[in-house]
Amino acid sequence: MLRYMTAGESHGKGLVAILDGVPAGIKLDENFINGELARRMTGYGRGGRMRIESDKAEIISGSRKGITIGSPVAMLIENKDYKIEDLADIKCPRPGHADLAGMLKHGFSDARNVLERASARETAARVAAGAVAKILLRELGIEVAGHVTAIGSVKAAPGSLSVAQIRKSAETSDVRCADKKAAEAMKKEIDKAGEAGDTLGGAFEIVAEGVPPGLGSYAQWDKRMDGALARAVMSIPAVKAVSIGSGIECSSMKGSETHDPIGYDEKTGTFTRGSNNAGGIEGGLTNGAPVVVRGFMKPIATLGKPLASVDVDTGKKAKAAVERADVAAVPACAVVAEASVAIELASAFLDKFGRDSIGEMRRNYDAYMETLKER
Amino acid sequence: MLRYMTAGESHGKGLVAILDGVPAGIKLDENFINGELARRMTGYGRGGRMRIESDKAEIISGSRKGITIGSPVAMLIENKDYKIEDLADIKCPRPGHADLAGMLKHGFSDARNVLERASARETAARVAAGAVAKILLRELGIEVAGHVTAIGSVKAAPGSLSVAQIRKSAETSDVRCADKKAAEAMKKEIDKAGEAGDTLGGAFEIVAEGVPPGLGSYAQWDKRMDGALARAVMSIPAVKAVSIGSGIECSSMKGSETHDPIGYDEKTGTFTRGSNNAGGIEGGLTNGAPVVVRGFMKPIATLGKPLASVDVDTGKKAKAAVERADVAAVPACAVVAEASVAIELASAFLDKFGRDSIGEMRRNYDAYMETLKER
Amino acid sequence: MLRYMTAGESHGKGLVAILDGVPAGIKLDENFINGELARRMTGYGRGGRMRIESDKAEIISGSRKGITIGSPVAMLIENKDYKIEDLADIKCPRPGHADLAGMLKHGFSDARNVLERASARETAARVAAGAVAKILLRELGIEVAGHVTAIGSVKAAPGSLSVAQIRKSAETSDVRCADKKAAEAMKKEIDKAGEAGDTLGGAFEIVAEGVPPGLGSYAQWDKRMDGALARAVMSIPAVKAVSIGSGIECSSMKGSETHDPIGYDEKTGTFTRGSNNAGGIEGGLTNGAPVVVRGFMKPIATLGKPLASVDVDTGKKAKAAVERADVAAVPACAVVAEASVAIELASAFLDKFGRDSIGEMRRNYDAYMETLKER
Amino acid sequence: MLRYMTAGESHGKGLVAILDGVPAGIKLDENFINGELARRMTGYGRGGRMRIESDKAEIISGSRKGITIGSPVAMLIENKDYKIEDLADIKCPRPGHADLAGMLKHGFSDARNVLERASARETAARVAAGAVAKILLRELGIEVAGHVTAIGSVKAAPGSLSVAQIRKSAETSDVRCADKKAAEAMKKEIDKAGEAGDTLGGAFEIVAEGVPPGLGSYAQWDKRMDGALARAVMSIPAVKAVSIGSGIECSSMKGSETHDPIGYDEKTGTFTRGSNNAGGIEGGLTNGAPVVVRGFMKPIATLGKPLASVDVDTGKKAKAAVERADVAAVPACAVVAEASVAIELASAFLDKFGRDSIGEMRRNYDAYMETLKER
Repeated sequence: MLRYMTAGESHGKGLVAILDGVPAGIKLDENFINGELARRMTGYGRGGRMRIESDKAEIISGSRKGITIGSPVAMLIENKDYKIEDLADIKCPRPGHADLAGMLKHGFSDARNVLERASARETAARVAAGAVAKILLRELGIEVAGHVTAIGSVKAAPGSLSVAQIRKSAETSDVRCADKKAAEAMKKEIDKAGEAGDTLGGAFEIVAEGVPPGLGSYAQWDKRMDGALARAVMSIPAVKAVSIGSGIECSSMKGSETHDPIGYDEKTGTFTRGSNNAGGIEGGLTNGAPVVVRGFMKPIATLGKPLASVDVDTGKKAKAAVERADVAAVPACAVVAEASVAIELASAFLDKFGRDSIGEMRRNYDAYMETLKER
Repeated sequence: MLRYMTAGESHGKGLVAILDGVPAGIKLDENFINGELARRMTGYGRGGRMRIESDKAEIISGSRKGITIGSPVAMLIENKDYKIEDLADIKCPRPGHADLAGMLKHGFSDARNVLERASARETAARVAAGAVAKILLRELGIEVAGHVTAIGSVKAAPGSLSVAQIRKSAETSDVRCADKKAAEAMKKEIDKAGEAGDTLGGAFEIVAEGVPPGLGSYAQWDKRMDGALARAVMSIPAVKAVSIGSGIECSSMKGSETHDPIGYDEKTGTFTRGSNNAGGIEGGLTNGAPVVVRGFMKPIATLGKPLASVDVDTGKKAKAAVERADVAAVPACAVVAEASVAIELASAFLDKFGRDSIGEMRRNYDAYMETLKER
Repeated sequence: MLRYMTAGESHGKGLVAILDGVPAGIKLDENFINGELARRMTGYGRGGRMRIESDKAEIISGSRKGITIGSPVAMLIENKDYKIEDLADIKCPRPGHADLAGMLKHGFSDARNVLERASARETAARVAAGAVAKILLRELGIEVAGHVTAIGSVKAAPGSLSVAQIRKSAETSDVRCADKKAAEAMKKEIDKAGEAGDTLGGAFEIVAEGVPPGLGSYAQWDKRMDGALARAVMSIPAVKAVSIGSGIECSSMKGSETHDPIGYDEKTGTFTRGSNNAGGIEGGLTNGAPVVVRGFMKPIATLGKPLASVDVDTGKKAKAAVERADVAAVPACAVVAEASVAIELASAFLDKFGRDSIGEMRRNYDAYMETLKER
Repeated sequence: MLRYMTAGESHGKGLVAILDGVPAGIKLDENFINGELARRMTGYGRGGRMRIESDKAEIISGSRKGITIGSPVAMLIENKDYKIEDLADIKCPRPGHADLAGMLKHGFSDARNVLERASARETAARVAAGAVAKILLRELGIEVAGHVTAIGSVKAAPGSLSVAQIRKSAETSDVRCADKKAAEAMKKEIDKAGEAGDTLGGAFEIVAEGVPPGLGSYAQWDKRMDGALARAVMSIPAVKAVSIGSGIECSSMKGSETHDPIGYDEKTGTFTRGSNNAGGIEGGLTNGAPVVVRGFMKPIATLGKPLASVDVDTGKKAKAAVERADVAAVPACAVVAEASVAIELASAFLDKFGRDSIGEMRRNYDAYMETLKER
């Protein structure tokens, strides 16, 4: 199992992640990790704060001479604007945030204590942890990529993309969308919403290629790969729906159109699939096809034109607090979801193939893949 | 924490559930549990097996004189058709099931070893566990209900229903759909699909009322209520997508239309919400509004007209095995999802209010609710 | 990970264990499991109930044609004297039992609700689960055995025994003690205590041979093998102390006498140890030497001559309830500890070598052992 | 549940702890935390490194204006001698350490990669986490203290001490021993061992006062308080045995002498105990008496006069590596054990009384204690 915990507030000293279970023998590429953090900060529609941010993950532990040694990887991402001690209390909780429920839960008289942790800032730590998972997966021939499929009312052309297509077409787009025409329309919609003091949500797709069949388990409800992926992606702030493969579409299709036919390629000795509506997961197990997870993000809950709220001290109507000024953050959310998916896949990989060293994992993995050809 | 594990194969001796963490002092109503099991077996579109089944949960442990004593509740559901030892091997894995991936994972030369556990039969044990969670929640004033919102291409009128509406209108429908017109159309579509040897999926909505604000936590990614619900529902066989509240719809709406305005009712001293797009969860916490979870189910993967597959021994094309003959099982799936949601809510309730006895929980809960009025 | 939960009360319908994570491909020998249950019931010094008991574990799930299929193994052990509904309330909590603390914790007005679960009867379910772990370990060349080293003031000759010695000399003793002279003295001490209405405790040693080096981990506090073993053995009712290897003795020895010198055997290409004070565990890892765990059991807390207590209804002095009449149960406790140790070792084995099938585990294990010779 | 993970190597940048589940509303006293770190570094018999060390925990997250806000507390302890990248490989594994088993496990060709994490240095992070747990417990009237009961062959006068006695007599001793005569003899034995290039172990006792009855649970094996404490203390490097209360002594006593008689004090309306052989835990539950946990530590495994080992590259006999030069570290180990015990007690407290704020916990706790008087 690959476990992780994060800590840190939005305007505190920084964010911390501890990732436990990282195999020995992996080159911990700090540049790659920081590149992932940079990817999280980009995207058309982000407000002022993001532009000046430039996150760097300092690796505190887990490696020697740049190579992991099997001990927990701890990373520290300093906050550039550490000022939590100076920030004022917030008396008007913002709809769409944890503000009010968090105050009630903890008995707080202001929302600042809530929103400092219940903030998308936390996802920087996840991205750092996910970057380590990606490095591990890459050593095993697994690549994870994500792209934006909708922002507001604009939808990209339907259909899953390959990792190569995502890298070529989406990664170069400032809304992380591979459909150029849609990308232009998305930006226009963002501009329009921004001018109106409004915000937008959207949808994204994460694709993992090179995943072997047999990760996860149907044997117990909490060992299923689909459940793990759903939890991981749903736990990203602002994500409100998760689909595996063409899950939503298939719910209105017929069985004969939905299920991916099984074939066999004599040359390679491997089973093939005629389609991938299952998104690479059947019965809670990866099936060898690309793993496809889609997420749906609600509009950002802090609006330029604030929403109706209440002053908790007086009970009188008031405008919700304004904390920052992004219009849309779907491209960033896709990066966080890549990280979340990578961690879950890596964790399931460890469960099947061991975790003590990358050499041992590869040996076990290769031997397994060899047996699959024998049938 | 309310933990549970299940065991049991589709044609084995029976199913077992152990539910750990049940508070002392609750009347364990066996009739209610068996009623829930019966609800799981109903629904227009089920094949022969379901009709003759009549599951009964035998309570093996956890109570004395009908009252829970704080020890784990174990339940045994005997299978009426125990014949796993006599059933033939299956050489043609069925698309849409765990069959092929399960064989590869475990090195099996037949799919029988897989499908006996990777079967919707397992959900009977979850429903039994969920029934206990529902009994507990009911003691705390929380009610959970579910209804079908779509089967195949037929969709019910949009909009969330109250528990009372669900009980009145959906529970009396043999497709568990509150929209009578849609229900008729669903049955027609089921008939048509059945005649064509095809199958259908659909969608459902689970609603929990009476949930206090502050269950779950935003403090750590794996403590969020939305993530827990997503995992619980996605882990139900055939569920491929999960949405919290109007998650999917909101992804294309504007922020000003999406987020539920906060008000304050001076008379009751409670905060109010102008809408419930959030589905009762903001920032990973319940917010006091009804919790709404939607699930999307793919069509049943065993078709009357079998799908293209391969004989694993020869590698030659073959038709997938046929194991049973349901056309649609969305009404049953909704019942399983109610159970899954109930367990997660009960578990989060225990985390906040303790778990040693229902009396202590109520005392802590009441004291908490009292403080909420003080603000 | 090999997980298990048990359920069941002392005079309820029966005991249930679910063991999750059992690899596919193992012959589930019911006779062996029942033999282990029988071993738990033996031992000089047991009262009437034990003699008539004859536990049988019914395997409810997890196998087909006698071979495990990777799904959870559920077992049911029926109680011969199911009468929990008829048994009277107990108003005088027994010192040394959970009675009083359990009543306070749960708000019970009688101790019956506590002692039905807080009973050594529960360990039958653990022994059944442990028997499955032993079967798995045996497939991997690992054998676990236990023997009694002290009862009351009588101590067996010091020094660890091999599994073969334990099987030959202790298993044939009705106090499970390999030292014949001590065994006779133990029985005399039991007789004497029994006549005086008193009870005795003692000590035991569990030895596991064939354990490879490298199970467990020092990387995180909760992954250490020694911690896992300590928890597992300490969680057995009446066990109050646990030692790894010669832990207690070494605490007063010098470093130069304690630590087991490392050597190298050129012929076999393996590292050797000059002694095994470490009990096979260094730094939280198994080191390839036999794993040795010692447990210390307090005297049975239900005495023929009852202890001073209080009537909880009146607050007046009273004699503690008498529930059964064993004088000593150290031989049985050793059997439970074997089971607990076996589960933890098997669990750690799965973490390193995978868990999908015994074939895959052996392949990964053999490959690992091969690499150890390369150095 | 109070969860924690640590990270960090002995000569890496530093140590990190994340403690998840800390209630809101607690004053995070940095001086107290650093005082605990200082206590860990003291003790007669420590070598050069300890003397110059002066650990400081920097609180990275979890508080605002010095008060916890319910989010995870992350702490960073910088290493003064960060030089892991420059340190040479170690080819001769040290008996008594994880060195050899860790190399085999991970496929390392040197022991440096092992010992950097499998080092007592890690316990600094635990002490920091434990200090936060102690602060929380103190708010709830629970105090935890520890003292040394043996070093080498010298044993202190038997019998448990109160927290007040420990603070008065042991805390002022440079071997943390309350028995002045024994303390002098311990120092002499340390001097003698040091001169001989040898090392010593010993024993310690941790006492927690103010613990309410009913923490932990007998309902499931892995929820027992004794098991949790055993794991926590056994997982401290060099600890090889753990006893709850007079566990080891009781194993050779009679039942009538062992079990602590129950009485009732009419004036306070509370149950009383005639003795505390149980160490405050019966049946896996705290019983309201002081919790007493004893640990046994083996001698330090790095000797001035190195042990027999092997060069792993050549297989030839060689002397084990020398990494540092403490003679005995029992006083420090007791401090680490205090921290470990504090975390487990706090965790069990949260399970029973909630964890969202200290106010809510106190309210629930007070209400519970009130009910105990009603009987």
